[in-house]
Amino acid sequence: MDQDMMVSWIEAGTIQIPVLLMQKYRSLGLDEKELSLILQILAYKEKGNVFPTPEQIAENMTITHNECSSILRKLVQHEMLKIEQQSDKGLGFDQYSLTPLWYKLAEEMMKERKQDNFRNVLEAEQ
Amino acid sequence: MDQDMMVSWIEAGTIQIPVLLMQKYRSLGLDEKELSLILQILAYKEKGNVFPTPEQIAENMTITHNECSSILRKLVQHEMLKIEQQSDKGLGFDQYSLTPLWYKLAEEMMKERKQDNFRNVLEAEQ
Amino acid sequence: MDQDMMVSWIEAGTIQIPVLLMQKYRSLGLDEKELSLILQILAYKEKGNVFPTPEQIAENMTITHNECSSILRKLVQHEMLKIEQQSDKGLGFDQYSLTPLWYKLAEEMMKERKQDNFRNVLEAEQ
Amino acid sequence: MDQDMMVSWIEAGTIQIPVLLMQKYRSLGLDEKELSLILQILAYKEKGNVFPTPEQIAENMTITHNECSSILRKLVQHEMLKIEQQSDKGLGFDQYSLTPLWYKLAEEMMKERKQDNFRNVLEAEQ
Repeated sequence: MDQDMMVSWIEAGTIQIPVLLMQKYRSLGLDEKELSLILQILAYKEKGNVFPTPEQIAENMTITHNECSSILRKLVQHEMLKIEQQSDKGLGFDQYSLTPLWYKLAEEMMKERKQDNFRNVLEAEQ
Repeated sequence: MDQDMMVSWIEAGTIQIPVLLMQKYRSLGLDEKELSLILQILAYKEKGNVFPTPEQIAENMTITHNECSSILRKLVQHEMLKIEQQSDKGLGFDQYSLTPLWYKLAEEMMKERKQDNFRNVLEAEQ
Repeated sequence: MDQDMMVSWIEAGTIQIPVLLMQKYRSLGLDEKELSLILQILAYKEKGNVFPTPEQIAENMTITHNECSSILRKLVQHEMLKIEQQSDKGLGFDQYSLTPLWYKLAEEMMKERKQDNFRNVLEAEQ
Repeated sequence: MDQDMMVSWIEAGTIQIPVLLMQKYRSLGLDEKELSLILQILAYKEKGNVFPTPEQIAENMTITHNECSSILRKLVQHEMLKIEQQSDKGLGFDQYSLTPLWYKLAEEMMKERKQDNFRNVLEAEQ
């Protein structure tokens, strides 16, 4: 019985979130609902569902499925999220991809490194 | 240069979030700001800061440090979060612990398993 | 270019290994080749391949595909690994499952907790 | 009781291993014992021990502490691992760093991307 619980827990899985996303989502123009929606997409993916509906996503959140649809649209428009066409054994299907968000995060990181380098140069000149 | 970026990324680290937390935070009475604050605590811990101030937490969020303090108080009162006294080489220090939240999540999981078992028994009887 | 590298890295993904597995594999009768083979199965799963061949697994290791087949057989016989039949859209397919290993790890953890409790009782009686 | 087990499990933690490391360790000249030793260093770090002794590392492995010392030396010589001096509140201490390994992995990834690009160019020319 004890073991059953633990094994269920292990098999329920975890998602990994870059520490950088936690540090930078506000600078990227996201708020906590938008961040949480992104994490829901990652959680559904971990469970094998690569294209959850707004209803499925909203179910685990404190928003309605209409609000969920708006946020999804906003994320696509602001190039944080995209919908990709995939095919498997002749069947086409859609899936959410967070590649655009990772690009924005990479840019954010480079900008910061350049500022750090610039600051070091200035300090070295004094 | 390319490698520097990648290594910085790797060393910035990730936090792991149980898929169950993403599925159950609403049932536990949490909203997206409270969830995100919990994730900030995990992100600070990953970077070695086990007791970030409300100012440090709010800095990465779309809330003020006053709101942050209220949420922290609420989380402690509702037994999701606790403050623990630790000591290291003779020096005492405080740290946030999410143990109470994991207990609530474990209970949630057990409740669900019991309902599933009960449903199976009913179905078997038909 | 820099961003491409980072995004490739992020999308290559990570596998999560319980710290307990690292602490207990030897007690469970596993050696480093067997542990690494288990991690290869997790890495292939992360990339979407749930039933890699012995050739595919051995390719990333310092063992031949014959050795790989023997280790797979041994892991199944010692109840660390099992092969499960799944079906998706009418098509049956096989996949490796590590559920038996997680059960053994859960047992190992319970045994240790009991010994700790017993030790505490003995110490309290003195 | 059930919950205690689960919470112990959660708090025991996990380590994250890049899928790329699982795919490339052989190309980097590592075998399974060396890989496992690297994972032990990550597991000790997760538990707060940043400089485990060869005895502590070997304890969880099927090698002696002498073999463990040789492997540690080899990893440092081949620039996979380095020992860093840190200081905390006036006290100096040593810690293992895997930064050199992440650099090698980043290089391996870049090499592969260049080959892919070159192959694409050749194919486009045909």
